[in-house]
Amino acid sequence: MAALTLALDAMGGDHGPSIVIAALKSALSEFAEVHFIVVGDEAELLPLLQQQQLDTHPRITLKHASQTVAMTDKPGYSLRAKPDSSMRIALDLVASGDAAACVSAGNTGALMTKAYFALKTLPGVLRPALMSAIPQASGKSSFLLDLGANPVCDSDTLFQFGVMGSQAARHVLHIEQPRVALLNMGEEDIKGNDVVKATAQLLLNSPSVNYIGFIEGDDLFADKADVIVCDGFVGNIALKSCEGLADLLLNNIRANINAHWMTRWFVKLFYSRLQRSWDWLKPDHYNGASLIGLRGVVIKSHGDANAKAFLSAIAQAVEEAQQDLPTRIRDQVEHVLLEQE
Amino acid sequence: MAALTLALDAMGGDHGPSIVIAALKSALSEFAEVHFIVVGDEAELLPLLQQQQLDTHPRITLKHASQTVAMTDKPGYSLRAKPDSSMRIALDLVASGDAAACVSAGNTGALMTKAYFALKTLPGVLRPALMSAIPQASGKSSFLLDLGANPVCDSDTLFQFGVMGSQAARHVLHIEQPRVALLNMGEEDIKGNDVVKATAQLLLNSPSVNYIGFIEGDDLFADKADVIVCDGFVGNIALKSCEGLADLLLNNIRANINAHWMTRWFVKLFYSRLQRSWDWLKPDHYNGASLIGLRGVVIKSHGDANAKAFLSAIAQAVEEAQQDLPTRIRDQVEHVLLEQE
Repeated sequence: MAALTLALDAMGGDHGPSIVIAALKSALSEFAEVHFIVVGDEAELLPLLQQQQLDTHPRITLKHASQTVAMTDKPGYSLRAKPDSSMRIALDLVASGDAAACVSAGNTGALMTKAYFALKTLPGVLRPALMSAIPQASGKSSFLLDLGANPVCDSDTLFQFGVMGSQAARHVLHIEQPRVALLNMGEEDIKGNDVVKATAQLLLNSPSVNYIGFIEGDDLFADKADVIVCDGFVGNIALKSCEGLADLLLNNIRANINAHWMTRWFVKLFYSRLQRSWDWLKPDHYNGASLIGLRGVVIKSHGDANAKAFLSAIAQAVEEAQQDLPTRIRDQVEHVLLEQE
Repeated sequence: MAALTLALDAMGGDHGPSIVIAALKSALSEFAEVHFIVVGDEAELLPLLQQQQLDTHPRITLKHASQTVAMTDKPGYSLRAKPDSSMRIALDLVASGDAAACVSAGNTGALMTKAYFALKTLPGVLRPALMSAIPQASGKSSFLLDLGANPVCDSDTLFQFGVMGSQAARHVLHIEQPRVALLNMGEEDIKGNDVVKATAQLLLNSPSVNYIGFIEGDDLFADKADVIVCDGFVGNIALKSCEGLADLLLNNIRANINAHWMTRWFVKLFYSRLQRSWDWLKPDHYNGASLIGLRGVVIKSHGDANAKAFLSAIAQAVEEAQQDLPTRIRDQVEHVLLEQE
């Protein structure tokens, strides 16, 4: 593995910097050549690093930030009023080339706005998109985008999401010819709205994308596509609805289990297996989301992430940085634009 | 219970008329005052009724239909080419007043198109909506609409869905002041697209609706609202995504269970409880969907419905017909239109 530097926003997330430092500890042994710049309030971070005996670690640099973006800060406000926030400094480290990627569990809206401002989109890219890996019945993963960066998209933008998602699946999921699908309310050509239908035409006409057609919500996890494209409004609601259903189901299973002494006893044996399913079920809790289409790698870990989930976001950042995903996307978008001329 | 007549499209659904006849048998004892007109191919239905000793039942009328709408028929085609289909005749029985409601497990697109054509919308209603009860963490149900009748909606239409859904919750779920929410990608006022924001204003300004604001996908089942409004594109994808996740999860749990001899043994005890959760988890499989805003009660049972699910759709039809939901909706829409003048 080539040497690489990652910037970690240590102040984001609901559970504070201790989660980030715990994830960092695991990441140091998992990624032996990666250097980490930990950005945040020195007074808070130094004791945490000392506790973990990481304060003098040769692959850690502590970088002070005098401000912290709150989970409730409005994006515009945080952009104007918090130029010295840990989130902004971590992004600036990517913009300057001092870090190859940045990971934050902070406020999603603020992160998207600051990232867009600090890093700008790649040449030819209309809009950045928020993309996450979602589990499939086969045990593999597929990419779903956009998850909320763009509540309204035109067909050119959705088409580009297909192109960008396809490059990501090729280089990060290592699928040679990723199957790209559009999320729609039916599989037939006549279904859906005008934007989805126009996007289907653009994808059909592009020799660079392996477009397989529309898929419906119930096939989101059925291993039918490697890349599933929709606007941010639909993607956000689809993924969060699944999260809501998972909660409902798991509470219901728990209630059923607790209702009987034999199941309560049994669950002690069964629980670890079930727990694994549960983690896997909440893709946006467990995986980070990639903000793609920018001139740098930005990974958003869930606000509620625990150390394991934050570590998984770090792993994603390492993979995307190693594959140099922004350059791959830039090249492909350029290629497709030339194709369309 | 007042005497009531229901029309059943016996030919719809993936599993054929035997499901409908099995549900009918249970419905006859459950709803002692309800008369059923069973519509479909006499040659196929009569032997099924005979098998169940229902062919001379005083509360069953068999009505022959020479055509059947296939699950793959395009809506426009079925409307033009199948005027004597079981689905169409069942709807016509509602239009003529010979039946108070109709239930079909047939092709959703064809049912919506035929119902719109045969029954027309209520005065003042812009568009009919497909609405389903979804389970809540509390064990209660809420209504979600639209589920796919309208892929694109303006704010006036979404506002009316709030008004109609609110009346349905009042009279069918028996909630005095139903909490009406808009499904959005965030809870803050600035989130979402222009249509959702404009709808929020209309709902806020209406004294007839108990509007509580935006809710996100992860609160779909969290008992925060009694009526959740969105366009048909979003509603369809949200509900079907949940169905997809439920399948993924349940297969995963099954795999975990089968992986160990002790869990395999245990599951024999645990299974019936789990099975109950599973039924409950697939709202659109288990419950019927109501097509509201029309001059009559139309219930769509899932194409994949078993007899139990079809019986649940019949129960919905009985409830909506007894409450005279179309009249309630008409009165409320009229009232709201006057309020707006």
